Amino acid sequence: MLIEIGKAAKHASFELSQCSTSQKNAALNCIAELLEQQAERILAANELDMQAAKANGTSEAILDRLLLTTARLASIANDVRKVVTLTDPIGQVIDGSTLDSGLKLQRHRVPLGVIGVIYEARPNVTIDIAALCLKTSNAVILRGGKETVHTNRAMVTVIQQALSQSNLPAAAVQSINHPDRQYINQLLKLDQYVDMIIPRGGAALHKLCREHSTIPVITGGIGVCHMFADESMDFDKALPLIINAKTQRPSTCNTLETLLVHTEIADKFLPKLSQIMADNGVILHADESAFAILKSGVANVLPVTDEELRNEWLSKDLNIVIVDSLDMAVKHIREYGSAHSDAILTRSLPCAERFVNLVDSAAVYVNASTRFTDGGQFGLGAEVAVSTQKLHARGPMGLEALTTYKWIGYGDDLIRA
Amino acid sequence: MLIEIGKAAKHASFELSQCSTSQKNAALNCIAELLEQQAERILAANELDMQAAKANGTSEAILDRLLLTTARLASIANDVRKVVTLTDPIGQVIDGSTLDSGLKLQRHRVPLGVIGVIYEARPNVTIDIAALCLKTSNAVILRGGKETVHTNRAMVTVIQQALSQSNLPAAAVQSINHPDRQYINQLLKLDQYVDMIIPRGGAALHKLCREHSTIPVITGGIGVCHMFADESMDFDKALPLIINAKTQRPSTCNTLETLLVHTEIADKFLPKLSQIMADNGVILHADESAFAILKSGVANVLPVTDEELRNEWLSKDLNIVIVDSLDMAVKHIREYGSAHSDAILTRSLPCAERFVNLVDSAAVYVNASTRFTDGGQFGLGAEVAVSTQKLHARGPMGLEALTTYKWIGYGDDLIRA
Repeated sequence: MLIEIGKAAKHASFELSQCSTSQKNAALNCIAELLEQQAERILAANELDMQAAKANGTSEAILDRLLLTTARLASIANDVRKVVTLTDPIGQVIDGSTLDSGLKLQRHRVPLGVIGVIYEARPNVTIDIAALCLKTSNAVILRGGKETVHTNRAMVTVIQQALSQSNLPAAAVQSINHPDRQYINQLLKLDQYVDMIIPRGGAALHKLCREHSTIPVITGGIGVCHMFADESMDFDKALPLIINAKTQRPSTCNTLETLLVHTEIADKFLPKLSQIMADNGVILHADESAFAILKSGVANVLPVTDEELRNEWLSKDLNIVIVDSLDMAVKHIREYGSAHSDAILTRSLPCAERFVNLVDSAAVYVNASTRFTDGGQFGLGAEVAVSTQKLHARGPMGLEALTTYKWIGYGDDLIRA
Repeated sequence: MLIEIGKAAKHASFELSQCSTSQKNAALNCIAELLEQQAERILAANELDMQAAKANGTSEAILDRLLLTTARLASIANDVRKVVTLTDPIGQVIDGSTLDSGLKLQRHRVPLGVIGVIYEARPNVTIDIAALCLKTSNAVILRGGKETVHTNRAMVTVIQQALSQSNLPAAAVQSINHPDRQYINQLLKLDQYVDMIIPRGGAALHKLCREHSTIPVITGGIGVCHMFADESMDFDKALPLIINAKTQRPSTCNTLETLLVHTEIADKFLPKLSQIMADNGVILHADESAFAILKSGVANVLPVTDEELRNEWLSKDLNIVIVDSLDMAVKHIREYGSAHSDAILTRSLPCAERFVNLVDSAAVYVNASTRFTDGGQFGLGAEVAVSTQKLHARGPMGLEALTTYKWIGYGDDLIRA
């Protein structure tokens, strides 16, 4: 079954690669329109998913992620209209020259081909990813979570309708709706047809993909992010950044999870930190020496475990670790971080530069919140995923990350000497 | 054992990332010098490998690939000196701007970290890859073929000596010398320490890596390359290109393997082709309709099998297939090609453009030999490998393909609104 999906996707990708930007934009506008026109049908499908989720005792937080409303659907449709306004990277000439041999060589930006996306709960991802793939002339095979199977089916039906109405191949966007997880494993082996796998989910999903895929996988989205409070920092200026990085939206991958504090300022700084964290409802998890100071503070504090230092809280919990030096902070980040986003708070230019050079993460900040690591914030116009691996794309992935290039050489009947 | 090698490599990569270009160039010059100074020791080690290979009944062709001589060693040393002259991509600012939020954001080119290279016979690859990795501040773990185990050991000893003399970490270049293949499997799972795997070898090695690696793999190097002889082509101008693509160096991956001939010109063209192929000692393997014409020609001709159309000859053998149209040629290339290098021979601009758009290979040529697909020919200054997959790097990979980027953001105590 998946082989047929793969073949159809590959074939559709060949057709898409020959489409003009205006054809693709017309299809995107059509998707947005049909999403609104067929809201009733989509919301009815979503209601089935909601009922099943409630019957399974799903948490309120997850239920809220599953839920579609007319307003949310309109917002999803508007996101598709925003993709229309983005610059189409396909066909761009990256570089080129006439070589000594006489060969006129250029690199042209072309689609990757077929992209497989494996994701969890949120139904907006279905539309979001489909729109970004279509904009870049890639076919996509979607594998959403079993919790949203009805919603996804309804949405993919709408997309395929829009594609057909726009004279584009319906197989450009396909989904695997069967809940059996064996289909994920099958998808990961479909290297004959699929060019890239993007998992969007937790650490277990990324591990599964890395271990079982014969297709290149973009892993990421896990953010054990750090801030290092250097001895030279300005307390009053640093505290709002720490609050922002931890509490602006705790469930995101660019949220601060561990604050590293230089030992020279710990005695003075931690009591202030405790106060402001208590004011913001943050629970602290401190290493031994930080605990000794924080236990007499106003914020709730618990001893931190090694395990907790290695994982995302994704909640209003913050680890506090005291370090002897900037180099110890870097060592901690290398050992415990996920190479996502890490920041230094400092007034010292040499310290800022040393930190930026030594920390090997997708995004490294000086006196800025880790919350900036985001396609929208970075001016990419869109975000396909956030990569924490180093090949192909690193950090927030925009449209360009859904492309590759082709070398095109014109010769005047040219042989290699 | 491999975990220790991985840890040491990762640690060395952190040190290398802080080295200046001149430090790295000094080490490269030192490697070149020591290779010449210690030629006797290296040639003695190579003699052991040669004796073992001869005892195993190794073919003359392979023996020639294994063999080192004083002259060959000097040439390898000079290749290292050439790497010194290349521009160091590390530290380049790719792009940057001040965003609306006030964040000053730049992308800096940085090393990948640790690269694992698995390769076969040729001992020059050991030095070549080590030099390119060092130039780009990457640590490398080498796994050469068992046929060159003594030569590789001697060479890596020289490299490590040069690194130590240049105050760089010796663990920047390590090799796995144990012939047991289980170490390849272990290396492929070392994702905690290794950032990229480059296999340099046959299809079986690439498949092994794709299936077993939990680290991103760059596959490539397999070239089932095509030329399409369009009906509008100029016979006299096309024939030298076909000869060049097939015979200039038949054992390379950018060598022509299958010539697709438009049916309209087959009757007139194939007899001429037969003559020139006979003159150049090429054996033809023809599909049914081509065979019917070629059997009365002067060149040796055999019926071609489906299997032969899917594989590299790497010898003076050429498949001939007659197609009804350009689109049929494209369809053949999609089905049988390896997405390496494909060319069209034509006088028609619309045909040239259609071919270039529809053929989804790393390099696509118009009236030029497929033999141009090469890092040196493309002006990259070096060639790490030729990628036929689409992520990260496509086609010939130069120094840039051994790098990634880091987003660096400076804020003036900046929070996300």
